Amino acid sequence: MIHVIKNFERVPAEMVEAFRGIGTATVHEAQGRKGYINYGIRPIAPRTRICGPAFTVEGAPRDNLMLHKAIERAQPGDIIVASLAGFYEAGYWGGLMNTSAMARKLGGLAIDGCVRDSEELIESGFPIFCRGFCIQGTSKTGLGTVNHPIVFGGAIVRPGDLILGDNDGMVVVARESCAEVLAKAKARDEAEAKKAVQLAAGISGVEFNKLGKNFEFLGLVEE
Amino acid sequence: MIHVIKNFERVPAEMVEAFRGIGTATVHEAQGRKGYINYGIRPIAPRTRICGPAFTVEGAPRDNLMLHKAIERAQPGDIIVASLAGFYEAGYWGGLMNTSAMARKLGGLAIDGCVRDSEELIESGFPIFCRGFCIQGTSKTGLGTVNHPIVFGGAIVRPGDLILGDNDGMVVVARESCAEVLAKAKARDEAEAKKAVQLAAGISGVEFNKLGKNFEFLGLVEE
Amino acid sequence: MIHVIKNFERVPAEMVEAFRGIGTATVHEAQGRKGYINYGIRPIAPRTRICGPAFTVEGAPRDNLMLHKAIERAQPGDIIVASLAGFYEAGYWGGLMNTSAMARKLGGLAIDGCVRDSEELIESGFPIFCRGFCIQGTSKTGLGTVNHPIVFGGAIVRPGDLILGDNDGMVVVARESCAEVLAKAKARDEAEAKKAVQLAAGISGVEFNKLGKNFEFLGLVEE
Amino acid sequence: MIHVIKNFERVPAEMVEAFRGIGTATVHEAQGRKGYINYGIRPIAPRTRICGPAFTVEGAPRDNLMLHKAIERAQPGDIIVASLAGFYEAGYWGGLMNTSAMARKLGGLAIDGCVRDSEELIESGFPIFCRGFCIQGTSKTGLGTVNHPIVFGGAIVRPGDLILGDNDGMVVVARESCAEVLAKAKARDEAEAKKAVQLAAGISGVEFNKLGKNFEFLGLVEE
Amino acid sequence: MIHVIKNFERVPAEMVEAFRGIGTATVHEAQGRKGYINYGIRPIAPRTRICGPAFTVEGAPRDNLMLHKAIERAQPGDIIVASLAGFYEAGYWGGLMNTSAMARKLGGLAIDGCVRDSEELIESGFPIFCRGFCIQGTSKTGLGTVNHPIVFGGAIVRPGDLILGDNDGMVVVARESCAEVLAKAKARDEAEAKKAVQLAAGISGVEFNKLGKNFEFLGLVEE
Amino acid sequence: MIHVIKNFERVPAEMVEAFRGIGTATVHEAQGRKGYINYGIRPIAPRTRICGPAFTVEGAPRDNLMLHKAIERAQPGDIIVASLAGFYEAGYWGGLMNTSAMARKLGGLAIDGCVRDSEELIESGFPIFCRGFCIQGTSKTGLGTVNHPIVFGGAIVRPGDLILGDNDGMVVVARESCAEVLAKAKARDEAEAKKAVQLAAGISGVEFNKLGKNFEFLGLVEE
Repeated sequence: MIHVIKNFERVPAEMVEAFRGIGTATVHEAQGRKGYINYGIRPIAPRTRICGPAFTVEGAPRDNLMLHKAIERAQPGDIIVASLAGFYEAGYWGGLMNTSAMARKLGGLAIDGCVRDSEELIESGFPIFCRGFCIQGTSKTGLGTVNHPIVFGGAIVRPGDLILGDNDGMVVVARESCAEVLAKAKARDEAEAKKAVQLAAGISGVEFNKLGKNFEFLGLVEE
Repeated sequence: MIHVIKNFERVPAEMVEAFRGIGTATVHEAQGRKGYINYGIRPIAPRTRICGPAFTVEGAPRDNLMLHKAIERAQPGDIIVASLAGFYEAGYWGGLMNTSAMARKLGGLAIDGCVRDSEELIESGFPIFCRGFCIQGTSKTGLGTVNHPIVFGGAIVRPGDLILGDNDGMVVVARESCAEVLAKAKARDEAEAKKAVQLAAGISGVEFNKLGKNFEFLGLVEE
Repeated sequence: MIHVIKNFERVPAEMVEAFRGIGTATVHEAQGRKGYINYGIRPIAPRTRICGPAFTVEGAPRDNLMLHKAIERAQPGDIIVASLAGFYEAGYWGGLMNTSAMARKLGGLAIDGCVRDSEELIESGFPIFCRGFCIQGTSKTGLGTVNHPIVFGGAIVRPGDLILGDNDGMVVVARESCAEVLAKAKARDEAEAKKAVQLAAGISGVEFNKLGKNFEFLGLVEE
Repeated sequence: MIHVIKNFERVPAEMVEAFRGIGTATVHEAQGRKGYINYGIRPIAPRTRICGPAFTVEGAPRDNLMLHKAIERAQPGDIIVASLAGFYEAGYWGGLMNTSAMARKLGGLAIDGCVRDSEELIESGFPIFCRGFCIQGTSKTGLGTVNHPIVFGGAIVRPGDLILGDNDGMVVVARESCAEVLAKAKARDEAEAKKAVQLAAGISGVEFNKLGKNFEFLGLVEE
Repeated sequence: MIHVIKNFERVPAEMVEAFRGIGTATVHEAQGRKGYINYGIRPIAPRTRICGPAFTVEGAPRDNLMLHKAIERAQPGDIIVASLAGFYEAGYWGGLMNTSAMARKLGGLAIDGCVRDSEELIESGFPIFCRGFCIQGTSKTGLGTVNHPIVFGGAIVRPGDLILGDNDGMVVVARESCAEVLAKAKARDEAEAKKAVQLAAGISGVEFNKLGKNFEFLGLVEE
Repeated sequence: MIHVIKNFERVPAEMVEAFRGIGTATVHEAQGRKGYINYGIRPIAPRTRICGPAFTVEGAPRDNLMLHKAIERAQPGDIIVASLAGFYEAGYWGGLMNTSAMARKLGGLAIDGCVRDSEELIESGFPIFCRGFCIQGTSKTGLGTVNHPIVFGGAIVRPGDLILGDNDGMVVVARESCAEVLAKAKARDEAEAKKAVQLAAGISGVEFNKLGKNFEFLGLVEE
């Protein structure tokens, strides 16, 4: 079995840039309500945004050995996306690893577990999404995988897929769907802007969204 | 079965105003430690306060159809109080619904689930209490009820009851008890102010609260 | 059975001062990854730090009688460290108790449960670590213990041990190990500062930490 | 405040008998999918069934004082339905209380918490629904209420309502709806028997339940 | 978007038969500790075993519409493997659906949620793995997918993969790996039988598994 | 740091025998409601009982290396009591280890995590208390401790303490308190037998336990 895969195709850099300003909820809707990542994985500070190709890591619980390997192998702009067997309660990432990741110009960290040295991490501005802060120390003796497809926050993430995060949460877009999803997301943003004008003017959302037929189909009875 | 009830009595507007500045913990104590709503339902931003008559919604999990109906039927000042079958993990409410609710001058949203478009919601100033933020999209095909009595955050809430929230959490007051609870809450606030002076002067809380008799009854043994 | 123990040895005041500026993660590592306290017990406000000898309380669920006893018996500088049977959902501590604790110059509160009057507590500056905010009222009829060894957030805490908390979480240091742990913690801080320089210069953490032998032992296969 | 209410109307004994053999899922459907009680409250042994008028108790966490009061005040056939502030982890009910309840010919116990002396309870044949077994001892100093409306396993239960439990779970039926629900439940059972014959013959449930129109309304696309 | 996919390759029937008697833990180890499905998904009765090609369903929470579609489209021997958005608390499957599935000779049901009519299901002998029993009724208005890859109990399951379950839990084997995994599983069973003889004779597992080198590498210190 | 401690005093064999037939709830009460172990740690089969001196293990999550060391070092009759960092979801113990432990005449296993090869374990009759069954494989590279004091299921357990388990749950008794607790437990059993006679005759538990003074102290109001 090969643990560490080095060669995989990434979502192109221009595509990453094109997604950078778009909201996660919009992207999630634009791709047909797919790619939702569990809402418990949150930005470490307000206004933190993350966007880039996924560099996936599957590690052992309370062990960060594979994260060190990931920092060593990832390319500038890559987002390390790490699952740790569903064990959140450890400080998998701290100040030193953050310094190293920034020196290597990585794009960010999305981890289904905790981090530590919170004040230093926040001040550094390196984009991090995680479950919270935890001081519990990690071992460095747990084997895992790098750049295999993983389940991250309940979603399937493959290396090279686009990972996007903002204050609402996170979403993953399959690399090969990015162009289509981008177009739909932009169209959705425009449509919503128009909708907002009408709703602000007082039109009912039921009327606007033509929900009457839904209520009729379901047999709603009003007093 | 009638799903949507339109006619019910609301706690009067003057009463709502009278409660606006009073703390939730004080109100909870003043009504005999009743009306406590689960502490996981939190304000979306610091200093957010909510106060008004409950407009209750029981919706289907991951579906916001009944919330659209609620926005359509609620009156200015009403607080939409919504339970979604205990399924938190969806963005039941977003920017457009918020725009619509504000256009219709609703009083706020208290939801036992998540919302999305968090930055827009926070900036809008519309008072929202919820479980957190989540991008997961909702369907619009789930039947439910409007203005039936519901269980919300573990408490029984009936349409027209007073809903109150601040940074400590939320409490519900039965419409017909509001006057009595208000009087007791005010009395309690005054009593606490006096107590604070004495405690700040160093008097023991055990002495002040006459807890000696409790320790005696329970048979406490001190070294 | 003696419920309330008054005489126990405290970590000395100079030692407390020496630990005040050191991070919890550093201390946890310095003492061999022991003393970790569950990460769900968090500071009530950013930049809150807590440091002092533990004054331990084991109380009944939804009851704060023993906390009143603790305020009465604790000495200036003591940190009340309280477990409430794993029942978080109550406002065990509020504005009046806080006033009393400050009047008596206690060092802080670490509680495996919730508190209320959050705005007042935060403004007071009294250092508090807790599970969150909750208005649910407490009774005063539950017997418990004061200054027995307790399990607090999964760690064993004995009266007089050093309790330390910052934005990363909390750690406990056995009273008799403080000198040794302090020396190691300082050495670790210095070593980390040097490490950071090298990592910032781009040296791989795998190389720096000599993780190659770990990968070899585990049989890692890279593409 | 009156803690213990003695006078309330019970679902009549004949009605209780009429419901005894009907399944909980059938009853839940027959009353419009209302009255569902959390599925974590389970029978202590296979084939345990419970049926009778609710005698409601709201107790303090880890305290069974109000349960003793309930045994004293309940009538033969009554089901003690008890909420303990959501704190499951105590042995609220044991062999002695069970002996007493049987001596007084009570109808059973439904408790949102644990019990102990499990082997004795199971052998006794007294019908018990609970969260599990737990040895943790209880105090007898916690005030609560008897025969107030309560939230039990997420459902609103009022004294005198019908409580029904079998291996599928529990359901509550409002006292005044029992006759109507009973009729519908019986009709449903008959209809299901006929349905089963057709389904066993191989007719598709989609066809039988006419779900084609649902798929069409929702826009299902099949390959 | 195509919701229902009909054409996919299944693990061959002979392969299914070959796996039928092998334990899940053995298979999990034989394929390199992959394919583990969350341990909370349990057989409905002792000695229940499940084995067959996965027929995957992603449904809406508290809605079983897509399960009806699955029964209609699945082939004899197929195991319906269903995720319901992580919402366990509903009776997604009951006696009638079970009758229909048996009439159509399906191979079993593996569902990340609850079922109802438990006694009837158990007596039927139809193999079911689930989260438990729950009476809560479901709607039939929730769109989903059939035979898309899904995340089931934390594992990625694709239509046609082999699903295996016994009293220890469940495992999924990728269709294309079945032959290799089968061979390794059998070899493992043989090796374990030999190992057992030696361990029963009293040889230390540390010695037998040559764990001394691990302890040495890790620096274990014994008294 | 010494990881594995070999020399410690055990509760004497005669004392272990004397406790063998006594219920856990009785013992818990007899020692003043101390020693309670979390109720989620259950016997693997009905009528399983466990009793003996604790041989404590603290292992790494999803790793059973230290359990192998424990089997090697434990003496006949010892109960391995193992905490695995709160990570339940692994099969820490299986058929081969069980064979080895039985060959060495160990007294049982109490583990705050899962086991696998459930049918074989149950048939073997070796007493096991655990969180459930799980196939997930473990590594053998995680360092831990043997015979240090640990937190097990929320209770402090020291090597040599008495561990007792039955169908109600588990309790730990400090080695030096065993004689006193045993005497009190027997006295309690006798007293309960007498109580049962009176309660079976219909005397009220409120009267029998003299709870009237409690209600009076608390100010209970009855209708």
